[in-house]
Amino acid sequence: MPTLTPGRVRHGVVFTLKHPEGSPEEADFLKANSELASIPGVEAFEIMREVSPKNDYRFALVMEFADRAAYDAYNEHPDHVAFVQERWLAEVTDFQEIDYEAR
Amino acid sequence: MPTLTPGRVRHGVVFTLKHPEGSPEEADFLKANSELASIPGVEAFEIMREVSPKNDYRFALVMEFADRAAYDAYNEHPDHVAFVQERWLAEVTDFQEIDYEAR
Repeated sequence: MPTLTPGRVRHGVVFTLKHPEGSPEEADFLKANSELASIPGVEAFEIMREVSPKNDYRFALVMEFADRAAYDAYNEHPDHVAFVQERWLAEVTDFQEIDYEAR
Repeated sequence: MPTLTPGRVRHGVVFTLKHPEGSPEEADFLKANSELASIPGVEAFEIMREVSPKNDYRFALVMEFADRAAYDAYNEHPDHVAFVQERWLAEVTDFQEIDYEAR
């Protein structure tokens, strides 16, 4: 994992779904979520399990952008907006965003 | 940033210090924090700024371990234990741990 270079942005979200663990609904959400990787500007896209016993989040999403403009363009991209409206708001019960930049 | 391979652990912490932004005390803490990178088993060590407007954390620490045993050994290493006791508990006002594994 390279250290972030100045100007670059890493965007993270930890979240929990309303679906039972290992359910088809969970798998379907994660599949739709993973398709965000194809939005222009998205780099180093990962979906992982969140496993700390010190919080209740179950999944983690991490991606990088070359700069703030690319991050903004992703946020406003119709595929991202549709995913948030049609899936995220309906199926995610709790989440937290964490964004990283170089010191 | 490579995707995590099964068995590998990424350990993250977001945190806020009691020190004023840009103060010598802040710089001294971050310098001591960065020395955790030399503990055996620690890989891909990063200290970054946390910049999301949706939370109040100011810094982020991320590191990786080859496996859970390496992570446990780091947690128990005298240099880590001393850092937590002597610096973290006295100077960190809020934090959250986030740990990642492959799906």
